[in-house]
Amino acid sequence: MRNLLFTISYCGTNYHGWQVQNNAVTVQQTVQDAVEKILQKRENIVGCSRTDAGVHANMYCFNMKTDSVIPCEKFVSAFNAMLPDDISVKDCVEVNENFHARYDCKEKEYKYLILNSKIRNPFYSNRAFLYPYKLDEAFLNLQAKQYIGKFDFSSFCNAGSSVEDTVRNVKNASVTRNGDIIEFTVSADGFLYNMVRIMVGTLLDISSGKIPEDTIRDIILSKDRNNAGLTAPACGLYLNNVIY
Amino acid sequence: MRNLLFTISYCGTNYHGWQVQNNAVTVQQTVQDAVEKILQKRENIVGCSRTDAGVHANMYCFNMKTDSVIPCEKFVSAFNAMLPDDISVKDCVEVNENFHARYDCKEKEYKYLILNSKIRNPFYSNRAFLYPYKLDEAFLNLQAKQYIGKFDFSSFCNAGSSVEDTVRNVKNASVTRNGDIIEFTVSADGFLYNMVRIMVGTLLDISSGKIPEDTIRDIILSKDRNNAGLTAPACGLYLNNVIY
Repeated sequence: MRNLLFTISYCGTNYHGWQVQNNAVTVQQTVQDAVEKILQKRENIVGCSRTDAGVHANMYCFNMKTDSVIPCEKFVSAFNAMLPDDISVKDCVEVNENFHARYDCKEKEYKYLILNSKIRNPFYSNRAFLYPYKLDEAFLNLQAKQYIGKFDFSSFCNAGSSVEDTVRNVKNASVTRNGDIIEFTVSADGFLYNMVRIMVGTLLDISSGKIPEDTIRDIILSKDRNNAGLTAPACGLYLNNVIY
Repeated sequence: MRNLLFTISYCGTNYHGWQVQNNAVTVQQTVQDAVEKILQKRENIVGCSRTDAGVHANMYCFNMKTDSVIPCEKFVSAFNAMLPDDISVKDCVEVNENFHARYDCKEKEYKYLILNSKIRNPFYSNRAFLYPYKLDEAFLNLQAKQYIGKFDFSSFCNAGSSVEDTVRNVKNASVTRNGDIIEFTVSADGFLYNMVRIMVGTLLDISSGKIPEDTIRDIILSKDRNNAGLTAPACGLYLNNVIY
């Protein structure tokens, strides 16, 4: 049996996240339906992570075991013909039979886009979080560096997750500006539930003065979700890179 | 009576262009409906140009004569509260009573975005023209320079326009690349019907060899629409700047 690794991208606005749910349109469901149209049978597909409703992916990976002999490049074009415009299949490669898109992932990178403007931009509707107050990207970049390291990040995990090990190794975190778009980029060996969105909310609360500056390390060490900031909205979040 | 000049931006995907039409949702109609909700009366609004269905605007201007005493900044926020997310009002200033958003326009700039990739990008769906064949931006930039000058551009005007004077002064034209996005930028004192889209289609036909290189001047001088290229799709076109 072949094991195929697919790389896709999607605009998450019209989806209730990746994972199949009852009574909601999800990316996984949409992809599985496309597979069924192509192969005339259902196949089990395994995603690299759950993403929340409205979250986007510049890069997302899933693997699928199948008896089909369709060559990889044909799969890419068949998929793109079947899928809606807001999901695109970029690549397909054959991997060994034990490969698992979630467990074998070594590192992921997320981006979070903030439209730092008093006035909305129609081209960033549902694609960035509109934040009208002053943001100093150099200051926030310095604050963000305090996320880097191997820590118990339970202060940055919302209820609703069943994981027991809350230690994660954050390898990079930075804040940059391009015009009125502020971009927070973070990579780690894994992320807890809503972790990136709480990291962003905490940076915004530091910017506004609600949380004192230079306290991110203390917030991490407190292991208390109440000490971190609000959960920033889903619409600004993009899974940006998946490394195996 | 006050005369107010508004600057807006809009994503044109869900609109049948600017101009009010029967049985179709247009940007002008949507803006007029918002005015009626704010002022409890209809006001006549005058746009800087017609745009086709699906065409976008990073910057678009219209003026409105009104007896209302609402200050300009209040108008901006009231408008943004009333309008859908794909239209944004950026600015409002008071102008003299004779100002006319179309007739007083000295120069406009358009951008045309081409996604030069074999595979679609969900974030450019309806926002760029997907063109999968090789494009050499340096070569196309040189070709585009031949558009610059004051000419009769009737070769670059589709049927359906009622203008009699088809002479336009093209001030700048260039092609640049940013990753897999090719951007054609052109500014002129005015544009004929579908002029930018035919300019882009002609560049693509030159790239593919269907039209010989270095013939843009000849095509212009022939004053024959049949000699120019296809009309590129509306979804890649953005009104980018309006100068008074």
